[in-house]
Amino acid sequence: MRGVSIVEVAPRDGFQAVGPFIPTAEKIGIVRALHAAGLRRMEVTSFVGRAVPQLADAPQVLAAALELPGLDAQVLTPSRKHAERALAAGARHVAFFLSASAPHNLNNVRRTPAESVRDYAEIAAMLPAGVKLRLNIATAFDCPFAGAVAPGVVLDLLDALLALEGNAEVALCDTTGRAAPGRVAALFRAAMARFPRVPGWAFHGHDTYGMGAANAFAAWSEGVGVIDAAAAGLGGCPFAPGATGNAATEDMVWMFEGMDVATGVDLPRLLEAGRAVAALPGAQTGGRVREALRAAATAA
Amino acid sequence: MRGVSIVEVAPRDGFQAVGPFIPTAEKIGIVRALHAAGLRRMEVTSFVGRAVPQLADAPQVLAAALELPGLDAQVLTPSRKHAERALAAGARHVAFFLSASAPHNLNNVRRTPAESVRDYAEIAAMLPAGVKLRLNIATAFDCPFAGAVAPGVVLDLLDALLALEGNAEVALCDTTGRAAPGRVAALFRAAMARFPRVPGWAFHGHDTYGMGAANAFAAWSEGVGVIDAAAAGLGGCPFAPGATGNAATEDMVWMFEGMDVATGVDLPRLLEAGRAVAALPGAQTGGRVREALRAAATAA
Repeated sequence: MRGVSIVEVAPRDGFQAVGPFIPTAEKIGIVRALHAAGLRRMEVTSFVGRAVPQLADAPQVLAAALELPGLDAQVLTPSRKHAERALAAGARHVAFFLSASAPHNLNNVRRTPAESVRDYAEIAAMLPAGVKLRLNIATAFDCPFAGAVAPGVVLDLLDALLALEGNAEVALCDTTGRAAPGRVAALFRAAMARFPRVPGWAFHGHDTYGMGAANAFAAWSEGVGVIDAAAAGLGGCPFAPGATGNAATEDMVWMFEGMDVATGVDLPRLLEAGRAVAALPGAQTGGRVREALRAAATAA
Repeated sequence: MRGVSIVEVAPRDGFQAVGPFIPTAEKIGIVRALHAAGLRRMEVTSFVGRAVPQLADAPQVLAAALELPGLDAQVLTPSRKHAERALAAGARHVAFFLSASAPHNLNNVRRTPAESVRDYAEIAAMLPAGVKLRLNIATAFDCPFAGAVAPGVVLDLLDALLALEGNAEVALCDTTGRAAPGRVAALFRAAMARFPRVPGWAFHGHDTYGMGAANAFAAWSEGVGVIDAAAAGLGGCPFAPGATGNAATEDMVWMFEGMDVATGVDLPRLLEAGRAVAALPGAQTGGRVREALRAAATAA
């Protein structure tokens, strides 16, 4: 049976949601612990500078990640300027993102989707040979401002993007966690049929409404081989105080290994790394497997 | 698109896990509120007498449920003696259960699986015309004592049971919550292929490891039309203190309606009933949708 590749996003998507600054050495320690647990893809940081003070140490964190054997360390780059900084710091994998929903894109990166399409083309054009590109479509199912996003909007946006540069892994992101698994499956099915030359598909989900595992399973069942998740479910949603954030890596590893789908991750070591993540001051955590295994161990 | 029928099990599976006695009038009030939310199938009680003092008021609760228009009220009956009491009290739908795993069956009903097969035949033989029968296979995927249960064990057990009485809805139950969705899908696929004359299939899942929604989606995707769930995720697992119990009805309704699969349930009214369930002293609750919608309403 084919395996699954989990992209650990706690060091970027997760840390970004944490208020108190996490000392750089602690960030690097967590990146190393996650790598030691077997994770070989990680979104390690973003060069967004003053916009997100938590990630001001992007060059140091990236440098440490690039030393880890076999780690594919991706860097989130919302514009050309950020991509330049990332490349100058040695990034070998950049992840561009834009939102399918116009109000979310304006709010998030202060650009219309059409402007972001041009940014994507610029970034793609400036990448040296061998640097990998990922294309994240945020709010691909649902927008915090506009509600449900029609599949046609996403497919048309991909038409425009992939005509400019088709050699990128494409991630469809359930930014709000409000997608249901049937919709996740249907959008991937439609997108894969329309864009058969995309080299790889990924799913990024949130567990706010308890659909993290169901949506990842639905995506995987359609042939998606790359699933984003954050250790300890680290994250948070600014539009829903108290709601949890990213799908938990522990839950994803538990689910896929329980289906005999290899993840390459050692669950006990991941649980250890997840405990360090959950212990960060200001951490909003989620997922069920950490607690369930702790309770089972207590009862035994 | 075909709909889904949700069997609300909080009044039996959920209440049974609550320590302090819930006054009979309060139980009946919750059954009525769940019915008012649109739920038309409910496991309302069990005639287990002194073994479970929480359900000592089974005759009164069943009588109240039988008055609700359009409600298919099922009663859990682990043996002939219990079925006699249920029928005497007017039950029109009895649900037998046994465990696929021998140690769990011995622990739970003090019988070997072979003895339970005979009990099933006895109960089936004594049912008056028009009384419906459900067959629950507990630990169909995993046993708290013996670990993973091989699919062949379940299929062989169904061979024996269905040869004696084939006119029953069959529920495969993930008692521990440790099944992964790929295994749930695979077992239903195998069982449906081997027993094509079974009139209906159901799935009963727990959310202890965060797989409640994923497993229900997997079952539904294979053609399962009946899904068990408990309002507010009421339940609990005696083998994992602090772990949550049944899949939450709110999460199931949210998921299926989000896929345009009709449930017949009014979510705002269900949330109201779920709040009453969650407020029961000693209630162990679960699920994500209740909290996420509350947080979203607070933020708006």
